[in-house]
Formats: sequence, C-alpha cells, structure tokens
Amino acid sequence: MSFSVIGELLNTTRDPIRNAVARRQTGVIQKLVIRQQESGADYIDVNTGAGVQAEQAELHWLIDTVQAVATVPLCIDSPDPAVIASAWERLDRPPMINSITLEKTRFQPLLEQLQGRPCQVIALCLDDSGMPADVTETCRRAERLVTALTGRGIPLDAVWIDPLVSPVSTDTRNGPGALAAVAAVKQQCPGVKTVCGLSNISFGLPARRIINRTFLPLMISRGLNGALLDPLDRELTAALATTRMLLGDDAYCLGYMDHCAAEKVPG
Amino acid sequence: MSFSVIGELLNTTRDPIRNAVARRQTGVIQKLVIRQQESGADYIDVNTGAGVQAEQAELHWLIDTVQAVATVPLCIDSPDPAVIASAWERLDRPPMINSITLEKTRFQPLLEQLQGRPCQVIALCLDDSGMPADVTETCRRAERLVTALTGRGIPLDAVWIDPLVSPVSTDTRNGPGALAAVAAVKQQCPGVKTVCGLSNISFGLPARRIINRTFLPLMISRGLNGALLDPLDRELTAALATTRMLLGDDAYCLGYMDHCAAEKVPG
Repeated sequence: MSFSVIGELLNTTRDPIRNAVARRQTGVIQKLVIRQQESGADYIDVNTGAGVQAEQAELHWLIDTVQAVATVPLCIDSPDPAVIASAWERLDRPPMINSITLEKTRFQPLLEQLQGRPCQVIALCLDDSGMPADVTETCRRAERLVTALTGRGIPLDAVWIDPLVSPVSTDTRNGPGALAAVAAVKQQCPGVKTVCGLSNISFGLPARRIINRTFLPLMISRGLNGALLDPLDRELTAALATTRMLLGDDAYCLGYMDHCAAEKVPG
Repeated sequence: MSFSVIGELLNTTRDPIRNAVARRQTGVIQKLVIRQQESGADYIDVNTGAGVQAEQAELHWLIDTVQAVATVPLCIDSPDPAVIASAWERLDRPPMINSITLEKTRFQPLLEQLQGRPCQVIALCLDDSGMPADVTETCRRAERLVTALTGRGIPLDAVWIDPLVSPVSTDTRNGPGALAAVAAVKQQCPGVKTVCGLSNISFGLPARRIINRTFLPLMISRGLNGALLDPLDRELTAALATTRMLLGDDAYCLGYMDHCAAEKVPG
C-alpha cells in the first residue's frame, strides 16, 4: 500500500476558516498549515468555494499565504475550471488539482489546461446525470477519465480516481458500495490511484469521527491510496499508522512506534 | 456478515480472575459475566488453564458460577480433552468448545467426545509441527479439521476455524498473513465459520487496544465471523458496531445509533 493524506482543514465552508480568509488572518492559516504538515499531511487542500463571488481572490490570497510556510504541495480545490486556471502561475511546486469530472462544464476546460502541466489530478466519477448508479458505472466513468487524462500526458499514477462516497445514513448499501467501488477501480484500471473525501461516509450520523476512523482501514485494505481528511484527528491518524502496520507497510513497526511515542498514545 | 463476540475476560491467566477463582469469589465472577453480556458477548469464555493442578476443579466451579447468571452459552476453553470431557454434564446449554487442533493428543480424544453432542467447535490450524507456514498450509489444515468434524456430525456452520494470528511485532508479514488466511479459509471451505483471538496481533507492542480495534474491521471485512475479545473495551465495541454498519449489516443504522446512545459516545 501507499497512502497520501490530503489535509482538508483549509476550506471556507468551515466557519473559522471563512472568517480567517475574509479577514486575511495570515497567522491562523499558517498555523493550520504547519499543524497539518506535522501531523502527516502530504498535500494541503485549499478551498474557497464558500465565498462565491470572492472565490478567486480569496484562493489567490490563500495560496500565497499557505505557500509561505508549506513544505508539501497544495491541493487546489475548486469546481470552477476558470478559478483553477487562474492559480497555476502562483504555484511554486506542482499541485494536486481537485477536481476534474465528466460534467460538460468541467471536463474539456480542465483537460485543456492540464496538458503539459506537471501535477496530480483528482478525477471524480461524476457526470451530468449525477452519481454513478452502481460499481459498473463507476468503473466505466473511471476508465473514461483515465483515458482522457493519460491522453493529455498525465501519467497514470498521477490520476486519482474518486469513486464518490455517499453517506451510509441515506442508504446502508453505501458502505459496501464504496468499498466495492475502490476495489473495482483498482482492478479495472491497474496503476491508477484512488482517493475519496473520507468523512462523506458519516454525514448525518452521530459520532462521525468513529465512523471515519473505522472506514479508513476498510477503504485502505481495498486499495484506497489517499483521502481528504482531518490530519489533526489523532485517533484517525493513529488508525492510519496502525493500518499501515497491519497491512505490512511498516518495517519493524517503526512508524507505529514513532506514532505512539509522538502522540503519547494511552492505548 | 455475521459476527459473534466471545467474551474473553474469565481467564485465570489474568490476575484478578485467578484470585477470584482461587478464593471462589462468586460476586466478582458473576459481575463480569453480566457486564460482558450487557456489552454484547454472544458467548462467555471460561479458562482455568493457569491453575495447572486445579484446572478441572476450578473449571467446574467457574462453569456453575457463570451459568447461574449467564443468558448466553459458555465457551469451554482448555487445551486438555479430559478437562473438556469432564465439563459436559454440568452444562445447561450447548457450549462452544475451545478448542480442537490437529495435535495427536487433542485431535482424536476431542473428536470422539464431540460425536452426538450439539455444540459449536473452535478448531485451530495447529498440528504437532507447530504453526502453519503459509496460507496454503492453513487451508490444508482447515480442510482436514472440517472434514473430520463434519464427519462426526458437527454441522459445517458450527465449525469455527481459527487460522492462528501471530503478533505483528515478531514479523510485519503477520498482519497481511492473518487477513489472507481468513479470506482463504472462507473461500476454500464455503459455509465454515472463522474465529481468532483478536489481541494476539498486538502482543509486544504499545497501545495494544488501538491495534486490536483497527485489526477487527479489517478481519471482519475478510470474513471473520467471531473473536475472543474484551467486550468491555468500549472503543472496540464501537468499532464493531461501526463495522457492521459500514459492511451493510445494520438496517437504518439502528444498531450504530443504539450503540452511540447507550455508550454516550462523544465522537
């Protein structure tokens, strides 16, 4: 297994972040960048989509502010290809792009700007008809995305397929469905990466963190290669360190032991 | 999925239990029976193996003491077929027997006493040469056990194969090995049940409870049907309730919601 943590905290749908971005509070933002990195984030997601009118200006400020302290790449998170297009020249290292879909307004515009630009790309199995109806449809969409992106020169292992996780609260088949989708995409498109927004699974239920940290090992064991998640959730990162060890990706258990020592885990 | 919890706490290798059994402290024992049942135990394991000389007498007292308050079957846990043989007439409902192995001293003696007796049987993939070397060997032993037990009239779904879990601390391949073994046994012997001693995986490492509660979802997702575990570990039982929900075995998420309500889970 290999697994990448995309730190999700810098999103203006979260009240403290919306306020910090609106007020240009550099310190608040940079502290969260550093804490996410220290807690194992491999990418820092930046999303200013809550500020409809201001999205682009806010994103530019946020990118500059984050990059001043970031030691890892950014994950540029917007549904608007024009907003993403406006960000490229500010970036000081190849980003992760979050995200392309098969929707008409996003597919071609994003494909065109990705050509020739080194980056990682999150590709959602979403088209204009909505969510995929089943695993077969998820795989069909994944293949279309993979074909299009690799056709534009994106390496296969830089394509991160998000099969789209729906809350188990709306349909209890969504848990098994998400697990099956990840496994199927990994099988159908060997070499591609898979990713999801981890906490989507727990929407609408109490004690969401318990669900998230139980879902993560299950998804990783099916082949999940990364997730947008909260790296400051210490029980979640403990589950991640433990999963790596249990799946045989932690020589001499050193990563797990380090995690225990660093977190003063009580057990 | 279906999953059974075998409450492991009444084992005289644990100091408080050794003392309580030695002093015949009925109240201490019965309280732990009730608490394990209330926390979801489907079987109550009783093991007096620490008291070498006294094993049989202690087991008899423990069985009588437990049965006075138990609403679920007992799991009679001894390596000694003679000790198990001495217990049958005391039992007021069909037990789980823990365990038969392929070792010469245990195999035939146990097989013979099982014939005609309704019970569940835990069958360890252990023979006189020791642990199985690989998954192929585990499956070969599982098949021998299944053939022998069903040949004596034990229903296939009353046979619980334990592929034997070794600590990840001694070899980091033991995690993937245990997961692969469960999956392979379920595939090779369709209809059989699988079981393990959950905490074996975490022996020798710090924060064992984190490892146990991360291992449980992974094992269940590969087909584990039961485990000896501590039902009073609330984070472990939360992981179990969540796993049931995430694997689609919790209509309307009611089991999960009940668990949250009962445990006042903070999330």
